Formats: sequence, structure tokens, C-alpha cells
Amino acid sequence: MGIPKLQIALDHNDLEHALSDAVKVGHIVDIIEVGTILCLQEGQKAISCLRSLFPDKLMVADTKCADAGGTVAKNVADAGADFMTVICCATIPTMEAAKKEVKELQVELYGDWTFEQAQQWLDIGVKQAIYHQSRDALLSGETWGEKDLNKVKKLIDMGFNVSVTGGLDVGTLSLFEGIDVYTFITGRGISGAAEPEKAAQAFKDEIQRIWGE
Amino acid sequence: MGIPKLQIALDHNDLEHALSDAVKVGHIVDIIEVGTILCLQEGQKAISCLRSLFPDKLMVADTKCADAGGTVAKNVADAGADFMTVICCATIPTMEAAKKEVKELQVELYGDWTFEQAQQWLDIGVKQAIYHQSRDALLSGETWGEKDLNKVKKLIDMGFNVSVTGGLDVGTLSLFEGIDVYTFITGRGISGAAEPEKAAQAFKDEIQRIWGE
Repeated sequence: MGIPKLQIALDHNDLEHALSDAVKVGHIVDIIEVGTILCLQEGQKAISCLRSLFPDKLMVADTKCADAGGTVAKNVADAGADFMTVICCATIPTMEAAKKEVKELQVELYGDWTFEQAQQWLDIGVKQAIYHQSRDALLSGETWGEKDLNKVKKLIDMGFNVSVTGGLDVGTLSLFEGIDVYTFITGRGISGAAEPEKAAQAFKDEIQRIWGE
Repeated sequence: MGIPKLQIALDHNDLEHALSDAVKVGHIVDIIEVGTILCLQEGQKAISCLRSLFPDKLMVADTKCADAGGTVAKNVADAGADFMTVICCATIPTMEAAKKEVKELQVELYGDWTFEQAQQWLDIGVKQAIYHQSRDALLSGETWGEKDLNKVKKLIDMGFNVSVTGGLDVGTLSLFEGIDVYTFITGRGISGAAEPEKAAQAFKDEIQRIWGE
């Protein structure tokens, strides 16, 4: 079992605030995510500016792409992204088109996806899936449970590198003990903290404590 | 039966080219769409610049939003969009959160959605659906058929205002004769033409010929 990576989701409404948090925690986290909100607000520039600050860091463009996969993927790769997300209800041709343009494609799981679909993604060579507690679902009171953890385990058993996200904090990480999580993704868990640098380090320390032995 | 509207999807890679086509055809079309590719490339500025040029035109931000519906919707409305798209696999709480912030929400139909889900969207007050031939599916050789038309008709019968898009040209419009389509959406059918203004007018004329009597 590997040590899960830590990814910060920069889901800010403007580049200024995103850059401010990025320079505080970019050296601590393993992956920097240009979040959907930031992509839609600032465009390609959000990716290219973050890449200029972190030339060697893994970077994800969270486009949640649903169509025109080839164009969107080429654009984010040109701007400096390593990985890109597609939404699970995108068609297989969209995923195939996107996959050609980026280093790795990540399928974001929302709504009523099936494990049969997940096998199709594996079959075309997609290696990563993101298991997501919807932010809006969390706001409606839902949270992580056994049902979620079983789905995460099954996806890992199928062969996916599985990232998990949604309402994570340092205390939630132990829920995943014994599970070969690829990456923990958090936005507000770090950006929303009074001291983002300390929050990011606390995540790293807890991941090391649980998975590092 | 109303007369279907014509919507241009500005799916350019940069604002310069989008603006150039917008000023050619904005006075002819009924709705201007800031396409997903353009949103992701240029950010909120793409919406606000087009709004500044067309203060009174219906405008759609094609975000294909999957999460954080409230924030994304508020952002695009602040920039000047009237309508916003959400992807069909977004959760109901995401759609509800988005719906509060924009004049109307449009659900984009991709992949394996069901009519039971569609009824849920109606139940929370979503009035618009977009029936979509995926661009990547079209590139793979799929096209409009009886199966698509029957789904469009069923959605209209359920009470949706249904826009259709994907591989449309002036010759394809007659396929929809007798169907109460809300809007025909085309991007390359206009932008890709040697003379976009003439292409847009040809769409309008054909719509008037078929539905205007």
C-alpha cells in the first residue's frame, strides 16, 4: 500500500486569492488542482499562472469535461496541466479524445454511474477515478459512510487509482485506514483554515501516521 | 407551436475569435451561448464582454456545471448570463442551488439519463432540457435518428422547453418538422461557414419556413 498523496483544490473565485493560498501550501501538498470554479472564472490563465509558480508540481485541471474532450484536454495541457477530469456521464468517445491530449485522465463520479461503466473506462485505459461527496450533497447533510467506503474499495480492486474528496478534514482521514487511497483532495479543509500552511501540514502528518508505517 | 429560437454556440478557443463571430451574427440569432470551451479558456470575462456588446440579448453560459451549483451560477449571473447549463448527472441539490441564482437552468443530457430523473428536474422547477448529440459521438459517426426524435418529443410532452444541438445544419432542421423545439443550437454551422452572417440568416429563414406558417 502506498502513501496517499495530498491535493489542494483551489476553488477560489479569483486568481488573486488562489495564488495567495497556492504559495502558502504549494510546497507542502503533492498535487495542485485548478478547481472548476477557478477555471470558469479565470480561464486558461489560472492554469498557466499556477504552472509558472510550480514548474515541477503535479497539476490537475478540474474541468469536469462532458464534451469536446480533445479540445478541452489540449487546451489545459497547453496551459500546463498534467491531469484533467471528465465527468462520468461523458461518452466513451469524449474520454478517448481527451485521454490522447493529457498525461492522465480522471473520471469524476457523480450521480448514477455503474461499475459496468467503470469497467469501460478501464478498458480504454483510464487509470484514475475520483470518488466524490458532492459539495451540495454535503450541504444537504449527507456524509461519508460505509456505502461510500465499499465503493471506493471496489474501484481500487478493479484497478483504479482512486482519489477521494468532499468534506474531508484531518479527523476524517482515519475512516479510510487500510484502504489504498491514491489521493486525498481538499479545498476548504486547507484554504478555509486560519493558517492554511499548518492545515496542509496536519493533513500530511496524519496521512504519514496512518499509511506511513 | 412556437417558432424555435436560434442559438449560436461560441465555442472558440479565445475571446478574440468569439467576439469577431459574435458581432457578425449577434443581431440575427435569438440567443448567444458562451460555450464550454470559451468559458474554460477565457473565464468570466468571456461572458461579461459578450454582455457588454449585447446588453439585451438572451445569453447562456454553457458551464455544464456538475457541482458547486450555487457558486458557479452566481458567478455567471454576475457576469451577465441569463441561463446556465448543468450536466444531467449533477445531483438534485446542485441543480436546486444553481437554480436560485440564474433566470433559468438548462439540463444538458449526456450519457445514461432516464425519464424518471427528468421528472425529478421538472419537480424542482427546471423548465429547460438540452438534447445533445455529443460532438465526439458525431465525430465517431453517430447522427440524428428516430430514437433521438422520439426522446425529444417525450421531453416536450413532459413539459420541458427542449433545445437540440449537435451536428445541425440548415438541411437537418426539416427532420424536426412538427416538433415544438424551443431552440436550435449550432456552433460550427454558423462560425464554421465562409460567411457566418449568411449562414445564420439561412438558419433563421429555414426555421421561419418550417415553423412560421
